[in-house]
Amino acid sequence: MKVAILGAGAMGSALTVPPSENGHEVVLWGTEFDEKSIKSIRDTGIHPALGARLPKINTTFDMMEAVKGASIVVIAVSSEGFKNIATEASKVLPKDAIFLTVTKGLAEKEGMVETLSDFYDSFGLHNPYVAIGGPSLAKEVALGNPTRVVFASKDEKAAETCTKAFKTKNYFVEKSTDVRGVELLSALKNVYAIPLGAILGIEKKTGNVDMMKNLWSAVFTAAVEEMASIVEVFGGKKETAYGLAGLGDLEVSVRGGRNAKFGQYLGEGMSIKEAEAKIGSTVEGYGTTKLVYGFVSSNKSGKLNTPLLKATYEMLYKDRPAESLLEILGQ
Amino acid sequence: MKVAILGAGAMGSALTVPPSENGHEVVLWGTEFDEKSIKSIRDTGIHPALGARLPKINTTFDMMEAVKGASIVVIAVSSEGFKNIATEASKVLPKDAIFLTVTKGLAEKEGMVETLSDFYDSFGLHNPYVAIGGPSLAKEVALGNPTRVVFASKDEKAAETCTKAFKTKNYFVEKSTDVRGVELLSALKNVYAIPLGAILGIEKKTGNVDMMKNLWSAVFTAAVEEMASIVEVFGGKKETAYGLAGLGDLEVSVRGGRNAKFGQYLGEGMSIKEAEAKIGSTVEGYGTTKLVYGFVSSNKSGKLNTPLLKATYEMLYKDRPAESLLEILGQ
Repeated sequence: MKVAILGAGAMGSALTVPPSENGHEVVLWGTEFDEKSIKSIRDTGIHPALGARLPKINTTFDMMEAVKGASIVVIAVSSEGFKNIATEASKVLPKDAIFLTVTKGLAEKEGMVETLSDFYDSFGLHNPYVAIGGPSLAKEVALGNPTRVVFASKDEKAAETCTKAFKTKNYFVEKSTDVRGVELLSALKNVYAIPLGAILGIEKKTGNVDMMKNLWSAVFTAAVEEMASIVEVFGGKKETAYGLAGLGDLEVSVRGGRNAKFGQYLGEGMSIKEAEAKIGSTVEGYGTTKLVYGFVSSNKSGKLNTPLLKATYEMLYKDRPAESLLEILGQ
Repeated sequence: MKVAILGAGAMGSALTVPPSENGHEVVLWGTEFDEKSIKSIRDTGIHPALGARLPKINTTFDMMEAVKGASIVVIAVSSEGFKNIATEASKVLPKDAIFLTVTKGLAEKEGMVETLSDFYDSFGLHNPYVAIGGPSLAKEVALGNPTRVVFASKDEKAAETCTKAFKTKNYFVEKSTDVRGVELLSALKNVYAIPLGAILGIEKKTGNVDMMKNLWSAVFTAAVEEMASIVEVFGGKKETAYGLAGLGDLEVSVRGGRNAKFGQYLGEGMSIKEAEAKIGSTVEGYGTTKLVYGFVSSNKSGKLNTPLLKATYEMLYKDRPAESLLEILGQ
């Protein structure tokens, strides 16, 4: 089977490993932003951002060449690039070729939440769509360290085909039909990693390092609870939030991700600008917090009680000090 | 209101703080094992194991004196001491005086699981019973660091009375009626902290420090899932496992507890004896794993799928290497 991977960033490149191990033909396509990475892979086998040696794979800058004849097309580009790439690729693909996406994105549309799969459906494309969720740091996947993820699809046959192609002795796959839940959670965990990081920053600033574990654990619990209720109200399944794509992904995010680091710097007392500058890139959860707060607070179901989201939003957009996060314990 | 606290260990002593802050009269009773602590509290105000200054409280070695006239009696002794103490205390208490317990204990009785509240009911005592759960390291409670716990009782009025007496600006209380769920979880989290600790040990042993976060997060998720299913099958509520008493308490346990440390030493390659010796005391989760594995594996409901429990049991009792924990990802 041929597997095309579109986007040679950390995650796209790491995902060359499982199907290669299973003996599939893997082609990695790089965009103009990936030139350095592709060159490094060609010259040394090593992806610079991953610091890991990839298996022997073909690389190309010609997307059509990558996609041609592929049974599975992994989309690992930015959400902005998603539409063009999916549309172009589908033109040369048979109808049963599968899009397996790590790209995620939420948008608000007339008070409703649109996920990337909704967006995809609106293109009128017919290839089956499978979304990947769960705790999966790219470097660990590239190194073959044990990982378990979720492949979510409305099309169970497509999910099974992808599972067979990717499942190895180190890369485990669990299937789900809750595409919407998985997609919502992969955005939500970026939001909730921020206050959890902020508590570590407050610990540091106040000289209380490792002495706010009760608080941290209570806020982690509140985060999972709020994620579960948001997922349920916006069309996913609550249980998905208690699984790998929800609490599992939040765990890994608070231990290794940029959103948690961003929160930590805010907790230490930095401004948003200072924190972003120190991280050196945009932090996804920052914008996502505004978006999620927007659709959650305009929801009229009466089923949402999300004080942690509100406190996080106000910390990021209303200049409330990080310390006021503590107040959510009383709510 | 008078609050009597029975047992001057770390948790009992820490729990003098919230009701004192609320202006209640607090008396701390020490057993013969608490002599040093009581003496230190009397001489310096500091509890040695907590390393924290307690509020001005009365201390006594006379249990009847402590209990007399109390509206709330906190039981914070070992599970072995529970029966005698509850029975003795109830003799001098009015019927509406409340037992608020941090003591936990499970036993198997004719294939069924008995929790401390079942055991309590079997004494024929009539005082209302409230169990405390949730992430609550004693030292942090003593220092007034923010904490949120669960008070669980079948008697909602009793839970409300305790909540009013203990709730402060740093100590937050959420009520629950799922006594059984809270009791089961406070034993289960000691079991599941062991494999999570073991992964950190394996990271260290194999030179992979901080490089098994995907695995750790997946196993944390599996732990919560298994706790939820065990709680449900044995008479508690699944949602309790997703709250403070379940995932919240597991979080704090893996970050600061002895069970996780014990697991870590096993993961590093120590024997059970070496690990226990290094910790310097019995590790509760060790015995609890056997007990829980016993009643779970003899359950005929067909609703339990607990590979992580099995792997943990076999690591502790069947000499399986800690590395075999990784296999649960494939199950």
